[in-house]
Amino acid sequence: MNRFEVTYRIFADDQSDAEARAAGIALENTVEIPRDVVPAGYVEDVVLGRVEDVVPEGEGTWLGRVSYHIDAVGRELPQLLNVVLGNASILRGVKALGLTPNADVLERFPGAQYGVSGLRELTGRASGGYVCPVIKPQGSSAETLARLCYLTARAGADIVKEDHGLANQDAAPFRERVTHCAEAVGGANAERADGGDPTRALYFASIGGHGDQVRELAMHAQEAGAHGVLLIPGLFGFDAMNRLAQDADFTLPIMAHPSHLGPYVLSPEMGYSHGMLFGTLMRLAGADISVFPNHGGRFGFSVAECTEIVAACRGEGPGRAILPSPGGGMSLDRLPDMMRLYGEDCVYLLGGSLLRYGDRIGDAIHEMRAALNGA
Amino acid sequence: MNRFEVTYRIFADDQSDAEARAAGIALENTVEIPRDVVPAGYVEDVVLGRVEDVVPEGEGTWLGRVSYHIDAVGRELPQLLNVVLGNASILRGVKALGLTPNADVLERFPGAQYGVSGLRELTGRASGGYVCPVIKPQGSSAETLARLCYLTARAGADIVKEDHGLANQDAAPFRERVTHCAEAVGGANAERADGGDPTRALYFASIGGHGDQVRELAMHAQEAGAHGVLLIPGLFGFDAMNRLAQDADFTLPIMAHPSHLGPYVLSPEMGYSHGMLFGTLMRLAGADISVFPNHGGRFGFSVAECTEIVAACRGEGPGRAILPSPGGGMSLDRLPDMMRLYGEDCVYLLGGSLLRYGDRIGDAIHEMRAALNGA
Repeated sequence: MNRFEVTYRIFADDQSDAEARAAGIALENTVEIPRDVVPAGYVEDVVLGRVEDVVPEGEGTWLGRVSYHIDAVGRELPQLLNVVLGNASILRGVKALGLTPNADVLERFPGAQYGVSGLRELTGRASGGYVCPVIKPQGSSAETLARLCYLTARAGADIVKEDHGLANQDAAPFRERVTHCAEAVGGANAERADGGDPTRALYFASIGGHGDQVRELAMHAQEAGAHGVLLIPGLFGFDAMNRLAQDADFTLPIMAHPSHLGPYVLSPEMGYSHGMLFGTLMRLAGADISVFPNHGGRFGFSVAECTEIVAACRGEGPGRAILPSPGGGMSLDRLPDMMRLYGEDCVYLLGGSLLRYGDRIGDAIHEMRAALNGA
Repeated sequence: MNRFEVTYRIFADDQSDAEARAAGIALENTVEIPRDVVPAGYVEDVVLGRVEDVVPEGEGTWLGRVSYHIDAVGRELPQLLNVVLGNASILRGVKALGLTPNADVLERFPGAQYGVSGLRELTGRASGGYVCPVIKPQGSSAETLARLCYLTARAGADIVKEDHGLANQDAAPFRERVTHCAEAVGGANAERADGGDPTRALYFASIGGHGDQVRELAMHAQEAGAHGVLLIPGLFGFDAMNRLAQDADFTLPIMAHPSHLGPYVLSPEMGYSHGMLFGTLMRLAGADISVFPNHGGRFGFSVAECTEIVAACRGEGPGRAILPSPGGGMSLDRLPDMMRLYGEDCVYLLGGSLLRYGDRIGDAIHEMRAALNGA
């Protein structure tokens, strides 16, 4: 296949309107000129998007399949997204539902470094769901946050994730905070190893700073002893994540946070499908773990939308299968149900409610483990 | 005022539901923990968002005003957006309508380098609307694109803007293309100056590459003789633009392109208002010119939405007033109406339809000027 394909939901009046709109998308995302002035030859034959088919989907909607050549993209992820849903993101009634990569895309955007199987090795946990406390709130000192890191790691957490709101504020500047927290988790891991525990906690530092400092901050985290980084592609750009994932010197797994991405999925009429954004695109951009809001929490995702995300994270390509990570106002009593729905290749986030345990937060980690194991 | 404020449209059942939702937004965008576990003192008093008031707006909607302290942000733009509409972007029925900065925000995010008045000086055009052809399509060689640059600049264009789809593709790699095009516009400007023309064309190079190369590519453009850069904040991040605008070594104006940003404005129930995204946030992030889709073109913005954008670009703060730039499927015959609506402090884009003129594209530039002057 010498072109990759994107399937769009298109709202239209009838078949011919839908076909015209699909042709409009193909123009919009590539040459952005009227069809009659597209230069013959290379631009028309290769660069211009091509409508492969347009079939009815439901009431007033059609599925339009548009293929693109890698020459319209080049080698950089921003332009891949520009072709997939750049200007077409501004058209009403156009939603990208799925992307079928070809060899060109897979070669240029190879995806995650670790993914599902890699995280099993890194944590040393051969089976079972991952217990992941979220360290917060912002405004706390680096010492307070490091203490939470220690307590949760010591109690058996698999991943100790910083809140995405921990950026580079004066209360706990990035470098100082990450150094303290990495040391705390390192200490807890040493004690776990001494006790014969074959598993370890991975500390994921939240990248907070300027967009052009992402690599420098990630390398600081790596050198300080962090085991992974958390990044917000909706604020730093998907390419920032991809660049880290493809950087030969950066060897840590990456967790993607959904902050600022809501409008891309909340409407059936625009943006991306849940699976495409939180699964396919996160995989293409090199995330190892994709955080998303669980159904029934503070956010309004449905069970179907959540299972679509999980399927897109763990199903066939692009790149390695990655770990879904549901969170957002979860509590201990919901974990067994979540485990039954999502299974063991999943990172279970628990944040604010853990703080109710105070210094006994380690007990909450034991209870999380028991809830997942008992499911 | 020691806090800055964001006004949200909140969909709710009644006043008390609206107040609860506003309190939820204040938590979500800052500490992201349940209210009852927010630590007393600094975190509760300073870091936590504060609901200032919640008043009815229309049927089923309320306006909630939430204030935030700069300490929740720090000095970097990604975290500013994270506080303004990070996790809350994923809540259904929450739309950010406006931002009232305080001195902290204005000091840390001072805005555009040039803006409305600066562009008058840079172009040498003391009055009148700006004529701005868009150079395209991608897939063309650097020579072909440079030829279009020359012809339009020679004919009197004020700004010669590259299409946002010109990235770093093999057909015309960024560095080669920009060098050619800058030279072409430079030659045209020399001829204009020889003929006694006090104005000049500004060539805006489209930044195409990786997110972490933005500064390097922008500096290449500057050194090659470009007069400005075009950047897509929806793909490279708003902070990439801000970093360029605040970079002491980078002295060119910046044009922001709306690609990939559609879902943030297309629904009344989520994202940002048109004015906030394409006006206020572009100003805060340092854009000198903000491109948006004109009403009645291929995109569905209304007249009211467009005038809201223009008011937010040119009205009171934050930072310098900037130039709005409507485009998207415009044609010569619509220019007089546009001029009457938007006035002279406006960059009028004309793209694909210019290609119909072929080698006589200079005639189209003359006609654009006549249409704007005659309005």
